[in-house]
Amino acid sequence: MGEFELLAKLRERLPAAGPRIALGSGDDAAVTIPGGATATSVDAIVEGVHFRRGEADLATIGRKALATALSDLAAMGAEPGEAYVVLGAPGDLDEDGFHALLDGMLELAQATGTAIAGGDLTRAPVLTLAATVVGHAPEPSDFVTRGGAAAGDLLVLTGEIGGAGAGRLLLDDPTLAGAVSEDAAARLRARQLDPSPRLHSGRALAQAGATAMIDLSDGLAGDAAHLARASGVGVEIDCGSLPLAKGLAEVAAASGVDPLQLAVSGGEDYELLAALPANALGEASLRMGEAAETTLTPIGKVSSAGGVEFRLPGGGRLEAVGYDHLAEP
Amino acid sequence: MGEFELLAKLRERLPAAGPRIALGSGDDAAVTIPGGATATSVDAIVEGVHFRRGEADLATIGRKALATALSDLAAMGAEPGEAYVVLGAPGDLDEDGFHALLDGMLELAQATGTAIAGGDLTRAPVLTLAATVVGHAPEPSDFVTRGGAAAGDLLVLTGEIGGAGAGRLLLDDPTLAGAVSEDAAARLRARQLDPSPRLHSGRALAQAGATAMIDLSDGLAGDAAHLARASGVGVEIDCGSLPLAKGLAEVAAASGVDPLQLAVSGGEDYELLAALPANALGEASLRMGEAAETTLTPIGKVSSAGGVEFRLPGGGRLEAVGYDHLAEP
Repeated sequence: MGEFELLAKLRERLPAAGPRIALGSGDDAAVTIPGGATATSVDAIVEGVHFRRGEADLATIGRKALATALSDLAAMGAEPGEAYVVLGAPGDLDEDGFHALLDGMLELAQATGTAIAGGDLTRAPVLTLAATVVGHAPEPSDFVTRGGAAAGDLLVLTGEIGGAGAGRLLLDDPTLAGAVSEDAAARLRARQLDPSPRLHSGRALAQAGATAMIDLSDGLAGDAAHLARASGVGVEIDCGSLPLAKGLAEVAAASGVDPLQLAVSGGEDYELLAALPANALGEASLRMGEAAETTLTPIGKVSSAGGVEFRLPGGGRLEAVGYDHLAEP
Repeated sequence: MGEFELLAKLRERLPAAGPRIALGSGDDAAVTIPGGATATSVDAIVEGVHFRRGEADLATIGRKALATALSDLAAMGAEPGEAYVVLGAPGDLDEDGFHALLDGMLELAQATGTAIAGGDLTRAPVLTLAATVVGHAPEPSDFVTRGGAAAGDLLVLTGEIGGAGAGRLLLDDPTLAGAVSEDAAARLRARQLDPSPRLHSGRALAQAGATAMIDLSDGLAGDAAHLARASGVGVEIDCGSLPLAKGLAEVAAASGVDPLQLAVSGGEDYELLAALPANALGEASLRMGEAAETTLTPIGKVSSAGGVEFRLPGGGRLEAVGYDHLAEP
């Protein structure tokens, strides 16, 4: 099957038009009528770097490609709009494989109200997926950047952290799975392989008045440092209050790593870290409840001094560094 | 040098804000205020598939990555706006290499009024570049799709064709260069390695009333078929009128291929093929002259019968097929 025949088949599965889409995939470019302001982000995942084929089915890999990009829109408090996907395919990916990747992407696209409006298909030595996503808001100021946190703000975190890191350990060494229940192991692996963009949470926090927000792709230590630097502030994180993924402690112990270190330095949890004025916590909790997506936990505060401090419950500090995607194998 | 340090250095070279950019690269997403309608396209080039390192310097490779994406905006008659770039880098690409790639992209971005507003950096087994580009127009109907050609319209072509195909032959077999002057060989190689998006021409043709337009990435035979299919028409191309690249005939002869076949089936010329109402040719020529980018040649007409016919000057038809990117080595 040639390029054009396959493209035509894949395109049949994409929307021809939509709320903001005057012209979908199939021409030289997609035509949209954005209105207001847009937030645009691009994210790529590469076989052997961000995932391994065999660890997850192709639909899950496709879903992760879109999820990691949408997570950036969540961190802006944006309403997801359109996605444009590059699919670099090795020679052994057959027609069913292309459809399976698209299955995963379309499933998440539909669940999140995202329209896949265009893309490109090419040969590549390993499976390579890049998604550019466009989110919307009435005004540029409706988006929450990393740069607005002020001393005295609370730091809040959605969901649990460390699950993706523990999942990576379980995938690398399946014998570790004996340390936790089968269910817990499956959940941890899913945190690594099949992340959920916190789009509802991001909008809830934006509407509640979040002053700064970032998604955790590099780990809490790294991403808290990004937020602090962009805002020109410091952050103090109370390690005792961190919501650690269930089973993380057991997996970390079985593999001889410090659970707290794994939780704050492991990347790819795709939870949201936000700064909130202290008086906005009530409204944020209420809106997070309405969004019914995940939990919200206060984990510390914004200070005027620069840098990130992880305070241990017994006193003292945890030294932690972020995840370096370029240093990965 | 780690990911974040390198990212910070590369980002320093990108615009922090611009005409439509409220927030440039460096946050979770770029924030733009589009206004009107947008045309968005994504294009990826992969080492070993679309280019070989060693055939061109890294700045030229960077420029080509952006050029092929912008060519799609040219084919919509769009005003280029923003670009978002994925850079997949093999382990042997050093810091200077990243900067050289960005040099090439920034040079073309500045020349075309495009702002590189975001991107992603990742490891990859071979050099992989993907560019998502966003173009603008006041109204969706200002863009020219592939789908509006009507029977009786003229077909026009910008510039010359076959140069990129001949350039590929010269790069594959340097002994062929003896068939042409050094200057001509250099120009043909540059057509393959360093294409120019016809952005001024695309807007000139759109303003002159082009009813359909496409850029030649798959070769005239393939792209004319795309335009005909999208418009529900046929096209008749007069082979005697095709503007063939200088030196093409000699290179084709030296390598034993038919020059006309090479011209219509070789891909990557990135010229524009447009349909125009017959009475709009004068205005199109005038506007192309003002744009001062390249030539415009009438090459045939739109018919009501489906398909693409290449009519040979002596009578008879040329059988030709388009370029299949997925079938490339």
